[in-house]
Amino acid sequence: MSFTHSREFAIQWGDCDPAGIVFYPRYFAMFDWSTAELLGAGLGMTKSKFVKHYGIVGIPMVDTRASFHVPNTYGDVVRIDSRIERFGRSSFDVGHRMMKGDVLSVECWEKRVWVGRHPDDPEKIKAVPIPQEVIEKLK
Amino acid sequence: MSFTHSREFAIQWGDCDPAGIVFYPRYFAMFDWSTAELLGAGLGMTKSKFVKHYGIVGIPMVDTRASFHVPNTYGDVVRIDSRIERFGRSSFDVGHRMMKGDVLSVECWEKRVWVGRHPDDPEKIKAVPIPQEVIEKLK
Amino acid sequence: MSFTHSREFAIQWGDCDPAGIVFYPRYFAMFDWSTAELLGAGLGMTKSKFVKHYGIVGIPMVDTRASFHVPNTYGDVVRIDSRIERFGRSSFDVGHRMMKGDVLSVECWEKRVWVGRHPDDPEKIKAVPIPQEVIEKLK
Amino acid sequence: MSFTHSREFAIQWGDCDPAGIVFYPRYFAMFDWSTAELLGAGLGMTKSKFVKHYGIVGIPMVDTRASFHVPNTYGDVVRIDSRIERFGRSSFDVGHRMMKGDVLSVECWEKRVWVGRHPDDPEKIKAVPIPQEVIEKLK
Repeated sequence: MSFTHSREFAIQWGDCDPAGIVFYPRYFAMFDWSTAELLGAGLGMTKSKFVKHYGIVGIPMVDTRASFHVPNTYGDVVRIDSRIERFGRSSFDVGHRMMKGDVLSVECWEKRVWVGRHPDDPEKIKAVPIPQEVIEKLK
Repeated sequence: MSFTHSREFAIQWGDCDPAGIVFYPRYFAMFDWSTAELLGAGLGMTKSKFVKHYGIVGIPMVDTRASFHVPNTYGDVVRIDSRIERFGRSSFDVGHRMMKGDVLSVECWEKRVWVGRHPDDPEKIKAVPIPQEVIEKLK
Repeated sequence: MSFTHSREFAIQWGDCDPAGIVFYPRYFAMFDWSTAELLGAGLGMTKSKFVKHYGIVGIPMVDTRASFHVPNTYGDVVRIDSRIERFGRSSFDVGHRMMKGDVLSVECWEKRVWVGRHPDDPEKIKAVPIPQEVIEKLK
Repeated sequence: MSFTHSREFAIQWGDCDPAGIVFYPRYFAMFDWSTAELLGAGLGMTKSKFVKHYGIVGIPMVDTRASFHVPNTYGDVVRIDSRIERFGRSSFDVGHRMMKGDVLSVECWEKRVWVGRHPDDPEKIKAVPIPQEVIEKLK
């Protein structure tokens, strides 16, 4: 079983569009922070800390997909359940399920990369191997 | 050949994150507006007009996926090429390619639904058939 | 003494810009939701409920100002203390103080209007008197 | 007379809230980029370039205020006229006026600071004097 993390929060007015439902790009921002909290919980430090601790620039997205089943509006309380589904050498996959009570509202899949500054050009970023310690803590 | 649309713009400071590159949820907002402009160009009226003209609430997302190949930072000028790839009864697929010069930066696929107010409950929304006129104009 | 409300949350990665600190427009979104929660707490129902209950479109901003004293980065836990400072006929003023521990990070002042659909043109909005019941509950 | 800059663009669906009008924090993001373009036009290089050229971290906001006169919805074409109203030693004031045709829609005032890394702590930022060359070019 892989490491899991849940967080619960209310949808805000500013998350919603003229149709009265969440503007879907906002869901990706919500899932992004769930991944940060998932890693933070597993590694025992917040993202700002683990980014410095492991000397990386961030964990940018390579590929992400979401399916939207049931819309949400402001005031709705939702819960995101997140887990790491696979570790590669320098990439990892995360899965999120947003629940509104017992109803599956949104599903999301992510492929991210563990990224540092490029050794030859500090302006650029470069995938680096995920430390074994990180994998152990998040498995 | 299906109807296509292109737009060009500069990435803004507020689109970017602490890694100095576009916060990826912002890409989805950019693609969302490209779809609005794609339909607007084909239908000969802006989204606010065609939403009223066809009596719909919007064209919410059902499923979307994006692959991120080359990052962008503020000041980068990018172009999004968009086209409708398939029409279903009440859903349609859109494809976007974000180019930075000759380089493919981000690809995105969307499945959206043509949606009106639910006849039994104005609080709810409901998929409705896409008018044949819309399909003709966008093909 | 006027009605007050506090909420606490962590700054997210996506709230921050390439300087590594909160992109200041995001603070306004945070204060906006604090006002929604302030009214929600006083009126005993969430914003989506009180908007319907009182038949309004929203509480749009007329004038707002913020002073930024101490920056915040992702992972920082902040608290917003909010209170209504004045009630007019159809407008009201809100004050927010964002605290990071004991440190005052950001101050914000808002003037908002209680707004309904325009009787002559449902496309337009119009200021309407704030119900006395609302004022009583929030004082 | 001080240096001025104008830009024109369409309001997007994702800029708007459930009331169908621009979610006001989005206006601050629009004004922020107008300031970046104002300086970019005066200095002859984009923000990403002038930030590096002058060795600063950014031009964070100290104090900003906006007055909202006429709301905008998606599809509305607006123009922002921006100018620098005052230069201090390390701070400067910017004024913006958003016009919808001949109508003044939103006004905004900004006080920003020219900021570099703190010499004693690279984690912190510190106001530094605005180079005379910058002031000359923007006057």
